[in-house]
Amino acid sequence: MLNKKRLLAPGPTPIPERVRLALAQDMIHHRKPEFKAIMGQVQKRLQILFGTTQPVMPLACSGTGVMTAAVTNLFAAGEKVLVIEAGKFGERWAEICEASNVAVEKLVLDWGQAATAEAVANMLDLHPDCTGVLIQLSETSTGVLHPVNEIAEVTKDRDVLLVVDGISAVSISPCSMDAWDIDCLLTGSQKGLMLPPGLGLIACSEKAWKKAESVTPSCFYFNLRAEKEKILQNQTLFTTPVSLIIGLNESLTMFEETGFDVIFKKQWALTMMARTAVTEMGLELLAKDHFTWGLTSVLVPENVDAGAVLEYAKENFGVILAGGQAHMKGRLVRIGHMGWVDWADLAAGLHAFAEGCKACGGTIASGYLEKSLHAYHSALSASDVS
Amino acid sequence: MLNKKRLLAPGPTPIPERVRLALAQDMIHHRKPEFKAIMGQVQKRLQILFGTTQPVMPLACSGTGVMTAAVTNLFAAGEKVLVIEAGKFGERWAEICEASNVAVEKLVLDWGQAATAEAVANMLDLHPDCTGVLIQLSETSTGVLHPVNEIAEVTKDRDVLLVVDGISAVSISPCSMDAWDIDCLLTGSQKGLMLPPGLGLIACSEKAWKKAESVTPSCFYFNLRAEKEKILQNQTLFTTPVSLIIGLNESLTMFEETGFDVIFKKQWALTMMARTAVTEMGLELLAKDHFTWGLTSVLVPENVDAGAVLEYAKENFGVILAGGQAHMKGRLVRIGHMGWVDWADLAAGLHAFAEGCKACGGTIASGYLEKSLHAYHSALSASDVS
Repeated sequence: MLNKKRLLAPGPTPIPERVRLALAQDMIHHRKPEFKAIMGQVQKRLQILFGTTQPVMPLACSGTGVMTAAVTNLFAAGEKVLVIEAGKFGERWAEICEASNVAVEKLVLDWGQAATAEAVANMLDLHPDCTGVLIQLSETSTGVLHPVNEIAEVTKDRDVLLVVDGISAVSISPCSMDAWDIDCLLTGSQKGLMLPPGLGLIACSEKAWKKAESVTPSCFYFNLRAEKEKILQNQTLFTTPVSLIIGLNESLTMFEETGFDVIFKKQWALTMMARTAVTEMGLELLAKDHFTWGLTSVLVPENVDAGAVLEYAKENFGVILAGGQAHMKGRLVRIGHMGWVDWADLAAGLHAFAEGCKACGGTIASGYLEKSLHAYHSALSASDVS
Repeated sequence: MLNKKRLLAPGPTPIPERVRLALAQDMIHHRKPEFKAIMGQVQKRLQILFGTTQPVMPLACSGTGVMTAAVTNLFAAGEKVLVIEAGKFGERWAEICEASNVAVEKLVLDWGQAATAEAVANMLDLHPDCTGVLIQLSETSTGVLHPVNEIAEVTKDRDVLLVVDGISAVSISPCSMDAWDIDCLLTGSQKGLMLPPGLGLIACSEKAWKKAESVTPSCFYFNLRAEKEKILQNQTLFTTPVSLIIGLNESLTMFEETGFDVIFKKQWALTMMARTAVTEMGLELLAKDHFTWGLTSVLVPENVDAGAVLEYAKENFGVILAGGQAHMKGRLVRIGHMGWVDWADLAAGLHAFAEGCKACGGTIASGYLEKSLHAYHSALSASDVS
């Protein structure tokens, strides 16, 4: 009873009570009018969320599942795509392509770096047989925000589909599929949407749908053209995760009540808060210029083991943070601040992280907490974000 | 979605999810074996909580209800009692006595002052016809902790019952009914016990039970001798608030798992945290030496309206604090930190309070937040509390 549990990982994220109560409702049948009415509401709200007039298809799967659906429905075996590999989830794109016999050219970047439109254009010029560019909007393993809107300027007039993993970005920072000329946008339920994992969401542009006509999906479970026909009737191809859809409707109601302008401003202010705290602590941010709005990646002091910091924060403060992945394990701590996380939660996370670093032999400058709260308030009261 | 709601009032207090899930269970019948078994468990745990071998009787009523039960079962019309009046709840004792035709002598103290055993002894010497001393352990309106254990030294060998309102004290700071020689101890569900309001708990010493034999309860609803017979069969006289009893069993399970040594240490550390913050802000604490462990009362700067501070904290931070009562309205803010409230909740409350004071024209010295967290950690790691 000393510490409430505080989940500050970059997904899964905490679930608001309103959504938990919706999730706790008794089961209804997914093929009956009552459920179809809910799915109809959800669909309208998902189109606003994605910034698209295209249908947004819900799939019962994890984020990797919906990434697999994108690859296997938009690219045939033997085709070649360009993958932006700047972290673990860029690598995930490449792995999925390879498993699906889609050839991969890679734009490999150091962890913490963002792709540029110029580099993408150069790669496409070098490899004109690429029919797709696969990228993350937010690379969750590093906290980098790739400039997807700029990259879309490169892809939109080429015979190339821009496929965007928006898993830790959609509902967290602005992303407008139609206005940005994204050809395929997807996300998962367990980040900004404040739901348990288990639901993927995906939409395709007209250009992508045309391309999909020439592709026979290689996996029976993921069939986007068939899903499209179904969602137009407020249904899914297979049994839908009913409770998650009902929970999603509640999350989307909360977004509607709050307004995305306020939500994005909050996310920006939390990001400024976390980045100010890290800098004031005397530590280094992994993502320097292009950073996502839902998590902040910090390099722990040289002599400190990040794993020990996580353990200390959990044991002594009830705060759950995330570590680095792959070669950044032990060096990186990722502080999640997306979805149902507010300034006071983040303050708790920053304090637990700082105390953890100190307990593990690191030096942390004092004064970071009040300065970070000041940065939060300044960002929130600024007239515009970004 | 900018601010989660944070309830930092001195009751009602937040309810842990475990307890809410227990409260949400479907109804069971209060006269059947299933419920009796639960009541039996609860009873054993309540005796540990109260530090007594006497039965602890649950009553379906508010705090004032259980105070009324004490007065109307222990004192007959025409008797006289000494009331320690050092705040709104001392006044409540006097009001109940007057409504029950029990005469009142008062030991009136300034708000913020604690009674002394010497003053109580002097009053009893002056008024030897007093058959009871009615006091709060924690006076919720001021944040004062009266030295009830010292006062019991005065009453125990006299023909006087010591009746203690432990509403904002039991489960928050040490209070051992039998060891301290308290004759009647009572509390409510909505403070340290982390439950909704609606349940009162009361126990009487052997001396009090003997006295009760000579009293005919003036209110049909409150009959402690009849309740005693019932609770020995794990029942109550009238319909019991079933869900609250089931929730109470869960709260008491949490206490059992954590240990009262840890809970009291936490409450002490939170109190040190709040008091350090207030002092570092440059503000004045109302209760100087004898202070309760579940709330901290702060005098706002002279030029500031406490009501406006509360409003600012609620509107801009989602933090619910309490104001002063009676003549302290507008001058006092009471920050609750009892029950299901931890260091990070309190940090949020202190920040919201400080920002509220600033927004309302007050001057707040900076640095209070990290210093208060330091005080919390120091108090928590100290080997003993007092």
